[in-house]
Amino acid sequence: MVDGENIFAQFKEHSVAEFFKKNQQMLGFSGKVRSLTTVVHEFVTNSIDACEEAGILPDIIVNLEELGEEHYRLTVQDNGPGIPKTHVGKALGQMLAGTKFHRYIQQRGQQGIGASGCCMFSYLTTGKPTKAASCYKGTKYELEVLIDFKSNKPLLNMLSESPTDQHGLTVTSEYKGVKHEQSNKGIFEYLRRTALANPHASITFMDPATGKISLPRSTETIPPKPFEIKPHPLGISPHDLLETSHHYSTEYRKLSSMLQNAFSRVSSGKVEELRRLVPDVDFDKNPAQLTWEDAEKVVKGFQQVKWIAPATDSLVPIGRAQIENSFRNIFSPELVIVTERSPKVYKGGIPFIVEAGIAYGGGIAAAGKQGEVMRFANKVPLLFDTSGCAITETVKNIDWNRYNLKNFDDEPIAVLVNLASVHIPYTGAGKQAVAAEEEVENEIRFAVMEAARGIQRYLSGKRKAHDIATRKKLVERYVEQLSSDLADLSGGKKEKIVKKLNEIIEDKYAKPGAEGDEDEVDDSTRDTKPETTDTGGDE
Amino acid sequence: MVDGENIFAQFKEHSVAEFFKKNQQMLGFSGKVRSLTTVVHEFVTNSIDACEEAGILPDIIVNLEELGEEHYRLTVQDNGPGIPKTHVGKALGQMLAGTKFHRYIQQRGQQGIGASGCCMFSYLTTGKPTKAASCYKGTKYELEVLIDFKSNKPLLNMLSESPTDQHGLTVTSEYKGVKHEQSNKGIFEYLRRTALANPHASITFMDPATGKISLPRSTETIPPKPFEIKPHPLGISPHDLLETSHHYSTEYRKLSSMLQNAFSRVSSGKVEELRRLVPDVDFDKNPAQLTWEDAEKVVKGFQQVKWIAPATDSLVPIGRAQIENSFRNIFSPELVIVTERSPKVYKGGIPFIVEAGIAYGGGIAAAGKQGEVMRFANKVPLLFDTSGCAITETVKNIDWNRYNLKNFDDEPIAVLVNLASVHIPYTGAGKQAVAAEEEVENEIRFAVMEAARGIQRYLSGKRKAHDIATRKKLVERYVEQLSSDLADLSGGKKEKIVKKLNEIIEDKYAKPGAEGDEDEVDDSTRDTKPETTDTGGDE
Repeated sequence: MVDGENIFAQFKEHSVAEFFKKNQQMLGFSGKVRSLTTVVHEFVTNSIDACEEAGILPDIIVNLEELGEEHYRLTVQDNGPGIPKTHVGKALGQMLAGTKFHRYIQQRGQQGIGASGCCMFSYLTTGKPTKAASCYKGTKYELEVLIDFKSNKPLLNMLSESPTDQHGLTVTSEYKGVKHEQSNKGIFEYLRRTALANPHASITFMDPATGKISLPRSTETIPPKPFEIKPHPLGISPHDLLETSHHYSTEYRKLSSMLQNAFSRVSSGKVEELRRLVPDVDFDKNPAQLTWEDAEKVVKGFQQVKWIAPATDSLVPIGRAQIENSFRNIFSPELVIVTERSPKVYKGGIPFIVEAGIAYGGGIAAAGKQGEVMRFANKVPLLFDTSGCAITETVKNIDWNRYNLKNFDDEPIAVLVNLASVHIPYTGAGKQAVAAEEEVENEIRFAVMEAARGIQRYLSGKRKAHDIATRKKLVERYVEQLSSDLADLSGGKKEKIVKKLNEIIEDKYAKPGAEGDEDEVDDSTRDTKPETTDTGGDE
Repeated sequence: MVDGENIFAQFKEHSVAEFFKKNQQMLGFSGKVRSLTTVVHEFVTNSIDACEEAGILPDIIVNLEELGEEHYRLTVQDNGPGIPKTHVGKALGQMLAGTKFHRYIQQRGQQGIGASGCCMFSYLTTGKPTKAASCYKGTKYELEVLIDFKSNKPLLNMLSESPTDQHGLTVTSEYKGVKHEQSNKGIFEYLRRTALANPHASITFMDPATGKISLPRSTETIPPKPFEIKPHPLGISPHDLLETSHHYSTEYRKLSSMLQNAFSRVSSGKVEELRRLVPDVDFDKNPAQLTWEDAEKVVKGFQQVKWIAPATDSLVPIGRAQIENSFRNIFSPELVIVTERSPKVYKGGIPFIVEAGIAYGGGIAAAGKQGEVMRFANKVPLLFDTSGCAITETVKNIDWNRYNLKNFDDEPIAVLVNLASVHIPYTGAGKQAVAAEEEVENEIRFAVMEAARGIQRYLSGKRKAHDIATRKKLVERYVEQLSSDLADLSGGKKEKIVKKLNEIIEDKYAKPGAEGDEDEVDDSTRDTKPETTDTGGDE
């Protein structure tokens, strides 16, 4: 007799906290070194995000104390605005709760899992709560936070409340079974790269092994603040349109006005165009009346309209000057080339921008480094899951031979790629690798190839100079003999002839390119593809 | 003035369904081909799991219909026990609900996300519900399921209820924006590999492009059923111990009896050993009174006891004969070597077993294949996230030179690895790559190296035979001349001398190894490491 009864007696519902408790590796808690770096990563990105949101130059102090073997206490202190009493528990002790998940803006965190994941990991390894001190609007709140796994709700223990003239958040938590290590997967490397991409941040690291390390800010200028944008019509699925329509059905009485207000780049002119393209759908009806079929038709219509690209200034890259500067500081390379692409959209309408830099030779060769890829997403360094990341894959798959380089892995070369977007398509909740979205990969490829052309020109010039020098030397060898022979033949003075010949040689080999062959620069990747969006505008 | 108020007005809580709706790529819904294969993967693994649980030989029919451009309807039908009316909605329309998440047993699914993720993806691309027909205990229930994203609860539409003498579940759902393709990432390859690892399953695929394809079962024997085991002490964290103690505090009045009943391999003798090792903790107190400090001490005690390994028969590998058989069927290779390691534990106490097979030459060379890695986890083929998977990484990082092989990628070789465990450490919710757990990686390495030694012996024998043949030919060249010379010198008959010499040569070169050098087989990876657990036992 077939019976599924026993098994269904075991049917249960689980919370997202239980899920990540069982699958900690999905949040980056796997490996002793990685786990500790992950914790620093989560708290530091939250701190920089909080400062950015409030327009504050970040002052971040990371204090790591060794309490025993594989046992550490970590304190991350920032000078952000702090978190109000009502929210601090949820911010640290509830997964998928926060201000970031639903906002359409370039920010470092985007899930509302990071900090609560650390609070969980701290408790699971030490049994202790995470301590928070939040200085917010004149009051300092101190409390302890745990997660109730069954309900995914915070368990709070309020410790004190006192007046303060400070602002900012300090989070302290302990971890066991983790390791602090000076390596390219360690905390210092993480912070160093964070400083590289965030030159306006001052970061201090109290390293239990080596003492205090300062990474001072290199600019006092707060970078422009990324701003929230409305979704672009090209990024909208029928489901999104339906959901948005129902959400705004009391606010806007007509579909046409809802479209103009809920989405970016939808003007009245574009609505008229849509009316012509989608005659079946009544754009004057109440948004609540929109059906799935209507939504599918409107979305098809969206695809036929020429839209202005999403607001480009909503995204804030690291910037060409800063990347050059950082590269020179870190590597003292022979050459740096940085390219910044214009903003694009992926999946139809999610804006993103790629910037890439290549540093070559000099200190990179001296340090014995080869084929290094430094990955960033919204200025956050990605240290792990290297091989599963679209950035690494794309960089390594470029045909480097084209650019006068042999195997990428054997060259003294460092490639930096930063992807900035209102939604980074991470492969996992650990946010360490970018998924293989075709448009994103293409932009990474174009950005790196553009920079590689600069390297190619340089190397090709260098090679040519070398070739010319070699040939010049060859010719010079014959000057003496030739001059004697000519002097004998012509009866002229040998010294004069030597001088003349040398003049001719100098003249001939002084002008690169005079020998004929032109610089062969690969042009196949120039950005000649038409944009998917029309940047001339009616708005 | 620093102000965080505006931003905290946007503080929100989200459901796990909303999380995966925004991050569909984490469930494997990225890329048109991959998305469709992912759907098949989720439903087929559920079907095989259901049959296994009920001890039924699986008959699975996968019917894919092309409804339009990038628009498909998929029906997966099984002969499992079906799902009771009360659970079918949650099984398909609620994430993290089900019978699998919390069970400590080798099973294909382990998260309770797969089917509901497909239901979500179907709705997001078509606006349509997923249809289910469940024949359970004499009644057929037909219904439609949607997910309410805000609450992560199923929305049901019951269609009919009628008597039946059938059993099993049929799920039908539609998808847009997906692609069906004959490739090594496509549905057919997925099903072919499923059949390879599950020879007792009969799988029928109705391919819209090529028609009906049958993958009949190659054995009528139902493999032994993996069974649920209690957690092993070496896999327990202080948190686990505390949680278990509190959970069982009414059932068992003493810590000692709780330990013996809630965990595997804890005998009264072992409890006495623990009492001596952890004198601070009172093993007679009520489990509810256990503190974190107690739990930490007991867990430290656990680590000092020599435990019997977890029950090995709780895990069911594919099996040596079946892997050999499948390899021969698929590749017709020159040589197949299969190794099965003994069960081990990772993270202290999670039992797992690794089996590996290597097929070399023959049909692999003929098909132009090189360095292929076929990955399985609990007999489920893993087709995606190749480069981020510990299996691929481990296989590729083996020093294949040692085994008379050049670059792995350039050899006519296929390596199969199956990892069976009560909890596969996947890197992500999409369950396509195994995380880099050290113990697991070691076992994979040892298993593959063991098989590689077989290949090495074979190749070394082949090479030696070739060398001997070459040398023999060389010597034979001189027989004629030498025989003439000897005949002249000795006055003997040349024919006789030729015969003698040939006899000597035949004798000399007939025995491999007679020439001196021994087979050099790499022995450095033999499993001489002591087990972490004592397999002689007191139980």
